[in-house]
Amino acid sequence: MFKAKIKADILKTVIDTTSILVDEAKFHITPEGISLKAVDPAHVAMVDLSLGSKAFEEYKAEDLELGIDLGKLDQIMKLASAGDVISLDYKEDAHRLVVKVANIVRKMSLVDTAGMPDAKVPNLNLPAEVVVKSSEISQGVLASKAISDHVALTADTDGFELSAEGDTDSVNLKLPKDLLVSLKSSERVKSLFSLDYFANMIKAAKSSDAILLKLGNDYPVMMEFDIADGNGHVVYLLAPRIESD
Amino acid sequence: MFKAKIKADILKTVIDTTSILVDEAKFHITPEGISLKAVDPAHVAMVDLSLGSKAFEEYKAEDLELGIDLGKLDQIMKLASAGDVISLDYKEDAHRLVVKVANIVRKMSLVDTAGMPDAKVPNLNLPAEVVVKSSEISQGVLASKAISDHVALTADTDGFELSAEGDTDSVNLKLPKDLLVSLKSSERVKSLFSLDYFANMIKAAKSSDAILLKLGNDYPVMMEFDIADGNGHVVYLLAPRIESD
Amino acid sequence: MFKAKIKADILKTVIDTTSILVDEAKFHITPEGISLKAVDPAHVAMVDLSLGSKAFEEYKAEDLELGIDLGKLDQIMKLASAGDVISLDYKEDAHRLVVKVANIVRKMSLVDTAGMPDAKVPNLNLPAEVVVKSSEISQGVLASKAISDHVALTADTDGFELSAEGDTDSVNLKLPKDLLVSLKSSERVKSLFSLDYFANMIKAAKSSDAILLKLGNDYPVMMEFDIADGNGHVVYLLAPRIESD
Repeated sequence: MFKAKIKADILKTVIDTTSILVDEAKFHITPEGISLKAVDPAHVAMVDLSLGSKAFEEYKAEDLELGIDLGKLDQIMKLASAGDVISLDYKEDAHRLVVKVANIVRKMSLVDTAGMPDAKVPNLNLPAEVVVKSSEISQGVLASKAISDHVALTADTDGFELSAEGDTDSVNLKLPKDLLVSLKSSERVKSLFSLDYFANMIKAAKSSDAILLKLGNDYPVMMEFDIADGNGHVVYLLAPRIESD
Repeated sequence: MFKAKIKADILKTVIDTTSILVDEAKFHITPEGISLKAVDPAHVAMVDLSLGSKAFEEYKAEDLELGIDLGKLDQIMKLASAGDVISLDYKEDAHRLVVKVANIVRKMSLVDTAGMPDAKVPNLNLPAEVVVKSSEISQGVLASKAISDHVALTADTDGFELSAEGDTDSVNLKLPKDLLVSLKSSERVKSLFSLDYFANMIKAAKSSDAILLKLGNDYPVMMEFDIADGNGHVVYLLAPRIESD
Repeated sequence: MFKAKIKADILKTVIDTTSILVDEAKFHITPEGISLKAVDPAHVAMVDLSLGSKAFEEYKAEDLELGIDLGKLDQIMKLASAGDVISLDYKEDAHRLVVKVANIVRKMSLVDTAGMPDAKVPNLNLPAEVVVKSSEISQGVLASKAISDHVALTADTDGFELSAEGDTDSVNLKLPKDLLVSLKSSERVKSLFSLDYFANMIKAAKSSDAILLKLGNDYPVMMEFDIADGNGHVVYLLAPRIESD
């Protein structure tokens, strides 16, 4: 059993956050809330999302796994305004999710979860933690995209830096400690990432004021932010690119 | 003789309403107002539009037929804001319509009406009449387009329903009597329609608050709504698709 | 040495005004301000732009020539809002322009100016001078584009006219003396121009309320307008098309 009501903008955030990596996702439903872990087809990035029952207007659930086509759910979102309440009702016998927006009922077939692997977030030792305003880092990403397809993230005891190198031009966003929300870094760490992935993650995090970045040296970056007024949380993991020079 | 002034938004509605079915139309001009009847090239749908002289700021006309390229007239509309007044002046000797927006004069050649047939609205016995809010049915059409290319309209003594069936998903907009503006139906009637045509008609009717639908069983639908604050009226007729199952 | 700060919208105007004709431009930097003269690749049109040091928030410069890729500079502008202040700093040793928007630093390689010719504005005797509202002439250009690829500009003692002839349709914007800002014309002059070029110039001038047009008979048109609240000035020159009929 899964019967819930949720504000359209929160459900939209769940979809947007996940669909940058996968088209379909296996949602774990429990009495406490929903969660999902998914790895993109190229195995470069991962999302780990959780949304507590408090993020919903109404929530009743038993333990369940639902395979959801995010594109289909997104189609239905187009019918809703931000304040609208979406009702979700899982019909076990027909293996369908009944989604209701205003007077419109969409009966949505579910995806078989048998072939969907259970992703596991690896245990990483990431020594630096930077909390940066999402508007600030968005600008840096936008500037970098004009000249390169990868971006370097650096943290040291004094601040954080995002930098990109093109053939003739370079872009730098240097944020000293006082321009960061917070900084925890005892050594200098630097890693290089695909700008496509990183830009999509930053874009998905734009609804959040601040983003936590956990960094190591030539190591994956972990990006974390809250959704649904703190009743939900997203963790992205992005593998580094190895500098060839 | 045809000399008239009209608000840009009203003329724009006339163009938009007609151009979903045809590129050119034969306008009948009389001292009482203008009207047109047109059938789309595939002979699936018809529009019957009338606009009384009261819809104009100024109006002087004798009996005339003008063949108008709707695309050309629409180009000129792009120069006007909603409140602007467009002046129209038929020059018989040059067989041109002189259209004036602000200080700009466009002399527009007319289309020969000789080859344009006179459409006739058939006399149909459509037992059910439903008046529905255009915003409500627009949402249903939008939801249906995501999963199918046709839509079923059903009316019975209790209410009205719009439904679409895809390969795995379905969409339903069920409006019981109390969610309709009005309902007149003594029996259950149901017909299937091309969603492309129906969606365009609903979109063209969006300037109107409410839409009258006249329905039968496997029969055409007649859609009616007012334009120009009740000084004009549009009737669409759309042939049904026959269910093959 | 060239170190300056300028409001984003002013720098954006400089780029937009120039990039309708060329991708790269040679900027002349002097202690009094910056200027450029450029001819489009087809040698049909020319721009002569000057921006005094008063248009800048801060300005320090020696005599210099900087070859700038306008597309690159425009990329950086996308990071700025209209009120933002952009800082420009020429690094002679690296032959780069360091552009700063908020906390983002873009180091931009410069273009070699060796191959860039020095354009010279010819001395023309253009007897008619018309000052027209840019909104008015923009509408005329928009209307003309729908039917033709060239436009005729006419001035006489009574007024100014923009006209276009299509195969079957025509467009006229007739502005008698009282609808012009000013008119100086002792004889009738008329010239024909490419609408593509003319439309781009008019569009680039839209930030200015009024545009000065200097006209002759089958002669180039000179278009002038102020930028940066009168602290800058743009002159366009456009060669005529010769009527073949």
